[in-house]
Amino acid sequence: MKIDSIINGIVLDHITAGKAMVVYEALGLDDLDCSVAIIKNVKSTKMGKKDILKIDNDFKIDLDVLGYLDPNITVSIIRDGKTVEKKKLKLPKKIINVEKCKNPRCITSVEQDLDQIFYLANEEEHIYRCMYCESRVEKK
Amino acid sequence: MKIDSIINGIVLDHITAGKAMVVYEALGLDDLDCSVAIIKNVKSTKMGKKDILKIDNDFKIDLDVLGYLDPNITVSIIRDGKTVEKKKLKLPKKIINVEKCKNPRCITSVEQDLDQIFYLANEEEHIYRCMYCESRVEKK
Repeated sequence: MKIDSIINGIVLDHITAGKAMVVYEALGLDDLDCSVAIIKNVKSTKMGKKDILKIDNDFKIDLDVLGYLDPNITVSIIRDGKTVEKKKLKLPKKIINVEKCKNPRCITSVEQDLDQIFYLANEEEHIYRCMYCESRVEKK
Repeated sequence: MKIDSIINGIVLDHITAGKAMVVYEALGLDDLDCSVAIIKNVKSTKMGKKDILKIDNDFKIDLDVLGYLDPNITVSIIRDGKTVEKKKLKLPKKIINVEKCKNPRCITSVEQDLDQIFYLANEEEHIYRCMYCESRVEKK
């Protein structure tokens, strides 16, 4: 199954198979009025299987959220049917209001207005910890 | 955005825009290993906007569930790249374990092993009622 190239928009390729929905939700794509395609379990020579997301419109993607979810995702910006930019993702140093701290004793459990901030504690192992209580995040 | 025709599989077309995810979940498509495409907010001359689902494999679709969700969905069975069958949907007389009765006094709230059965009480207005307590279902 192939999807025609889009004219103006964004393609997220090489998403780990089965993870497209998590990315879709984390980026808030459900709220978009434009055409969005989610293609799951596409055959890939590199990955065996992968997911792809295509967004048929200009859309400011949160690259920090995306890099946190999976730094191996390929982001291509399409203009007039051509790829004009490929964005490289990396693990963000900090994520704000992406994950919630699960520690019931963390101050964020009491002070509900506080931002949920996690910092990259170990880049090699992709470990993030709560800025307030050091609890390790359990990744989606 | 267009999606190439699939070779063997099923196409669900004319899904009300924004409802593809509900259909996707109700049919359990997340559990499939085959390639599945969900295309949201596609331009449609008939409907303005619509959603489409493509399943790149043989898959026994529960037509009762689908008819209950939206009897206007078009179901096409594809073999060797050609549509070999179009299935007509209708509101099923009964739905079993698709919805849960929300009435806390209903026997299904106490007897957790009972099937959740709703019957079509008013075809014109698409109203379903619980077989046990007559509570009206609140459609997803």
